[in-house]
Amino acid sequence: MIKVGVVGGTGYTGVELLRLLAGHPQVELRVITSRSEAGLPVATMFPNLRGHVDLAFSMPDLSTLKTCELVFFATPNGTAMTMVPELLDAGVRVIDLAADFRIRDVDIWQHWYKMEHACPDLIDKAVYGLPEVNRKEIKKATLIANPGCYPTATQLGFLPLVEQGLVDCSSLIADVKSGVSGAGRSASVAGLLCETSESMKAYAVAGHRHQPEIVQGLNLVTDQSVILTFVPHLTPMLRGIQGTLYGTLNDMSVDLQELFESRYIDEPFVDVMPAGSLPETRSVKGANTCRIAIHRPLDGDTIVVLAVIDNLVKGAAGQAVQNMNIMFDLDERTGLNGIALLP
Amino acid sequence: MIKVGVVGGTGYTGVELLRLLAGHPQVELRVITSRSEAGLPVATMFPNLRGHVDLAFSMPDLSTLKTCELVFFATPNGTAMTMVPELLDAGVRVIDLAADFRIRDVDIWQHWYKMEHACPDLIDKAVYGLPEVNRKEIKKATLIANPGCYPTATQLGFLPLVEQGLVDCSSLIADVKSGVSGAGRSASVAGLLCETSESMKAYAVAGHRHQPEIVQGLNLVTDQSVILTFVPHLTPMLRGIQGTLYGTLNDMSVDLQELFESRYIDEPFVDVMPAGSLPETRSVKGANTCRIAIHRPLDGDTIVVLAVIDNLVKGAAGQAVQNMNIMFDLDERTGLNGIALLP
Amino acid sequence: MIKVGVVGGTGYTGVELLRLLAGHPQVELRVITSRSEAGLPVATMFPNLRGHVDLAFSMPDLSTLKTCELVFFATPNGTAMTMVPELLDAGVRVIDLAADFRIRDVDIWQHWYKMEHACPDLIDKAVYGLPEVNRKEIKKATLIANPGCYPTATQLGFLPLVEQGLVDCSSLIADVKSGVSGAGRSASVAGLLCETSESMKAYAVAGHRHQPEIVQGLNLVTDQSVILTFVPHLTPMLRGIQGTLYGTLNDMSVDLQELFESRYIDEPFVDVMPAGSLPETRSVKGANTCRIAIHRPLDGDTIVVLAVIDNLVKGAAGQAVQNMNIMFDLDERTGLNGIALLP
Amino acid sequence: MIKVGVVGGTGYTGVELLRLLAGHPQVELRVITSRSEAGLPVATMFPNLRGHVDLAFSMPDLSTLKTCELVFFATPNGTAMTMVPELLDAGVRVIDLAADFRIRDVDIWQHWYKMEHACPDLIDKAVYGLPEVNRKEIKKATLIANPGCYPTATQLGFLPLVEQGLVDCSSLIADVKSGVSGAGRSASVAGLLCETSESMKAYAVAGHRHQPEIVQGLNLVTDQSVILTFVPHLTPMLRGIQGTLYGTLNDMSVDLQELFESRYIDEPFVDVMPAGSLPETRSVKGANTCRIAIHRPLDGDTIVVLAVIDNLVKGAAGQAVQNMNIMFDLDERTGLNGIALLP
Repeated sequence: MIKVGVVGGTGYTGVELLRLLAGHPQVELRVITSRSEAGLPVATMFPNLRGHVDLAFSMPDLSTLKTCELVFFATPNGTAMTMVPELLDAGVRVIDLAADFRIRDVDIWQHWYKMEHACPDLIDKAVYGLPEVNRKEIKKATLIANPGCYPTATQLGFLPLVEQGLVDCSSLIADVKSGVSGAGRSASVAGLLCETSESMKAYAVAGHRHQPEIVQGLNLVTDQSVILTFVPHLTPMLRGIQGTLYGTLNDMSVDLQELFESRYIDEPFVDVMPAGSLPETRSVKGANTCRIAIHRPLDGDTIVVLAVIDNLVKGAAGQAVQNMNIMFDLDERTGLNGIALLP
Repeated sequence: MIKVGVVGGTGYTGVELLRLLAGHPQVELRVITSRSEAGLPVATMFPNLRGHVDLAFSMPDLSTLKTCELVFFATPNGTAMTMVPELLDAGVRVIDLAADFRIRDVDIWQHWYKMEHACPDLIDKAVYGLPEVNRKEIKKATLIANPGCYPTATQLGFLPLVEQGLVDCSSLIADVKSGVSGAGRSASVAGLLCETSESMKAYAVAGHRHQPEIVQGLNLVTDQSVILTFVPHLTPMLRGIQGTLYGTLNDMSVDLQELFESRYIDEPFVDVMPAGSLPETRSVKGANTCRIAIHRPLDGDTIVVLAVIDNLVKGAAGQAVQNMNIMFDLDERTGLNGIALLP
Repeated sequence: MIKVGVVGGTGYTGVELLRLLAGHPQVELRVITSRSEAGLPVATMFPNLRGHVDLAFSMPDLSTLKTCELVFFATPNGTAMTMVPELLDAGVRVIDLAADFRIRDVDIWQHWYKMEHACPDLIDKAVYGLPEVNRKEIKKATLIANPGCYPTATQLGFLPLVEQGLVDCSSLIADVKSGVSGAGRSASVAGLLCETSESMKAYAVAGHRHQPEIVQGLNLVTDQSVILTFVPHLTPMLRGIQGTLYGTLNDMSVDLQELFESRYIDEPFVDVMPAGSLPETRSVKGANTCRIAIHRPLDGDTIVVLAVIDNLVKGAAGQAVQNMNIMFDLDERTGLNGIALLP
Repeated sequence: MIKVGVVGGTGYTGVELLRLLAGHPQVELRVITSRSEAGLPVATMFPNLRGHVDLAFSMPDLSTLKTCELVFFATPNGTAMTMVPELLDAGVRVIDLAADFRIRDVDIWQHWYKMEHACPDLIDKAVYGLPEVNRKEIKKATLIANPGCYPTATQLGFLPLVEQGLVDCSSLIADVKSGVSGAGRSASVAGLLCETSESMKAYAVAGHRHQPEIVQGLNLVTDQSVILTFVPHLTPMLRGIQGTLYGTLNDMSVDLQELFESRYIDEPFVDVMPAGSLPETRSVKGANTCRIAIHRPLDGDTIVVLAVIDNLVKGAAGQAVQNMNIMFDLDERTGLNGIALLP
């Protein structure tokens, strides 16, 4: 049993992580911290966990966390970096579900996240936790930067094309749509049902933090310089990311379906659907799967990749558990076999 | 491994049953029939099952079904009764998720279901599959009439009061609200998103088929004659039943919280919440749990019981699996440990 | 043209009031105040008003408000009562959409609203603005207490029965379901889409502020003492209240359909639907109409009245405009002819 | 008063047209036909129209329709073309909300609509009813081809750029998202709430009928050859189209905000929002407005135009009424002043 701690379990990423960890046969959940909710039983805040999680939130406390083998941070950006150095020193492994260690260039990070990085020297040590790219490094890692939700869907959709140099990397477009849970569980007007239901909108069109993360990931697998137009949208639903990815093909003779299928044939959580498929976000609701389909509208030179994930699972908590499984030499699917809830 | 067949797996009850059976460690799913979809891989119709269910729908065929130890019917009302006799004769056990065997008085059944019963002699043989009432009989049963969704929530909410004679049984009211999946997966105008979303309405106020089922169940546990006003409502959501049950107390000295807690203390799937709780349907989304809370508004003589279930799980497929576990001497929780998805 | 001011226009009741006033041919909208948003153009906050409302929010200022003939308060409870006395003294008429003047017994008001009343002497002067009961008094009123949303639907549904003494007033039950806009537009976790969508729950079962308001209203039209069990529910939709009202008939010979039709025959905004109808909230979305249908399930002695309104229109802003029309001797329908948006 | 008939009023476009016509001060609604619902009062099918529309559906009958000055067709594709010739001969003007007369090249039309055209000679006579392009022709027209919903939003968004030659017309991308009402009101599984709610997906990626309509419209205003990748998406909401339009700028010195503002300055139903705006579909719910905002992400050479409409209003019934107003020399805004419902 892996002794696990969770820092910050009061958001939607947190409750999803707890749901997955509570059902994981190799995890002993030792501590869940929350400064604001210390003392409150977790299952009082999240009644779905009644009978499954008996812990109460406790104050964040490094001495307790150090008794764990692995600590997940499901905190706002900027929190993990203040605690990670001491945990690593104590031999505790860390998976950060926030963005503190995702961007390798600290200046770019500081530009987008509007704060000073607390431990820039650790950024190099962190492994970007996208198993479909970095499985080997993840196995040996002590610090994982768990990818963002949009970056997971977008990279998985573009990767086979960019790796093989089949698209013009200077004109990629990602039009991505997210459910409202991506906006978190803080009190706000913007996240009210009455502000988000029955409406669709683009947001952060001028620039979004996930854009440099995606570009960084794609640049690692190509010699071309990646230029990406990234437009996120707020969609009136709870969960799910649907990405519609556009690229200009520079070679129209390749069997794209075959390319994607062979790229992901050994991946337990990437499902390349049959030609002509139209993946729905609901087909992955609650599951750690990314489903992908490839189209060439009217047989033109524009390829359209459709990729769907559950932003809280493969886009956050599920991927974190997948990374844990890899780090601790478990079958990668352990605790992640849940089937998506449909309808 | 229990050899299992499913007749009619193309509705929402069907896909939920397949989800649960696919994740059940003691089940070998042998055959799924559908007259209309024969030949189609199940996972093509329900992409959430990709990678989990490899079977294709096949034509209903008694000889194949007879190779199973247990057959579930997830068919429209009136189908199971035409096939059950032959299956029982062949030693196959049956759980009918439809209504064919729920009502003991065949005249009442024929009145409400507007058809002649094909095997009225088998009705007595059938056990009403509400484990919280009939666990012992279920254990020995060969034919289970799996309860309706509304009847499950309503009976579990009223049972402790009616059993103890604490309410006036001649004036019970059940105001129940259901998600749209209760209306099934047939092509219809009434079930369109554009007809049901962003709207609330009562329906079948003049009389609903589940009313006599509930009355029958409650009459079994009391000497009083039960008169129930039952008003179902269509609620703009996918899943969930929320029941608000009203009764007039004839003894106001009883500790109702204690009564409910002790009644259900050994029940793995009934959760009596702490005093003052307000159960939400989302707290049981995808789970086989019924959560109950008890209130006495303004300390008057009206008791208000709040009961929530997932209509497709504890109200249908989950309860069917729970019955299977009991029939086959498995731990009742086997394959039903999934935690509700929140949000 | 009536010179109109609005105090507090940043909530959902406020924006709905602005929508109706902007389309009203006899209204000159002079000032909209908001302490927190002073300076912001109204249409920046509510883009649906772009091109229709040119005003910006301004600081609340009595001298400006005094230049109006009528001031609406769309403020939180407790605000209007601090400004109303001076406005009335200046000859300005007032319609308060909040609860400050709804309850005639100041002790009861203070008990439920948890504050001291600032001008208890004005309560008697206030007219409860339910035109279907108080039209004559409204015509002469200088201060209107606009009814709550639940109380509007519930009273309109029960009134004909209670007025005629046809039900046992000691055992009335109102099971009412509201869209989330009833919870207002403040930043909160409880109102997030991710907390309210795809879920149904009862709330405030122990007691809700609208219960005494309804009881007060019904007590005025009967000699019996009204005892009401009132259970509100939060429904996953934007707008709409659906009330299912239960009473025990003490005379089963009356033609209830005829009773309701004749009671409301001259009412422009109460629509008694044909026998057997099942009103949907969407049929009044955006309209000032209350639709009602009457049922007697299984021909028993329980009458079930179904009543639907749009909580923001007939339950708030629309009723306020209706009251204005009456006060200023306009056709009661002026500016309220909008047809409900379906779907 | 314009004597108006409506053929086929049972779909969502139909009920929206009836809502607008019922509130139009210059319209006398004479006849509404429906083969399937003949005899049924319109307001029985659509209760929101109770008290506003007294007509019943009648059998389609040319002699009655010929007594009208204007007939709207809110029918499935392929119906109008069978009746229009005779109506035009009788001097009746026609607005077809379906696609029968939208495509000028009859071969292309027949390819996409999979049927033979019944009156190809009339196609040239038809005026494409996009007032922002064809106002003068509409004024004199006897037959209007009312634009599709996607084409309205997409053309209005691209027009200023294409007219001025500012983008590379060979690589336009339109990623558009529609509410479910766009799929119509026929009984189907695909349109059920349980198939569409809480899910997002692209559809018709291989090719959609609205693509050639958009290309035709844009080709009229440029010498370049337009190549458009058009990807529609089904969004879990009732109404609304959100278009995210991508083009590569060939001149980065132009003030795009000014370009759009001056292009649409005299248009009553196109609202160019301030720089940096993020239009929401809910800001036009029920209104005939198209709101547009222009962005250049990270100051690159990709322009992103955001355009939102209500698919049933500016995308269908509202635009039809706008066309009627133009044809009959009324103020273009008559009957179209309704403010969007928010929330």
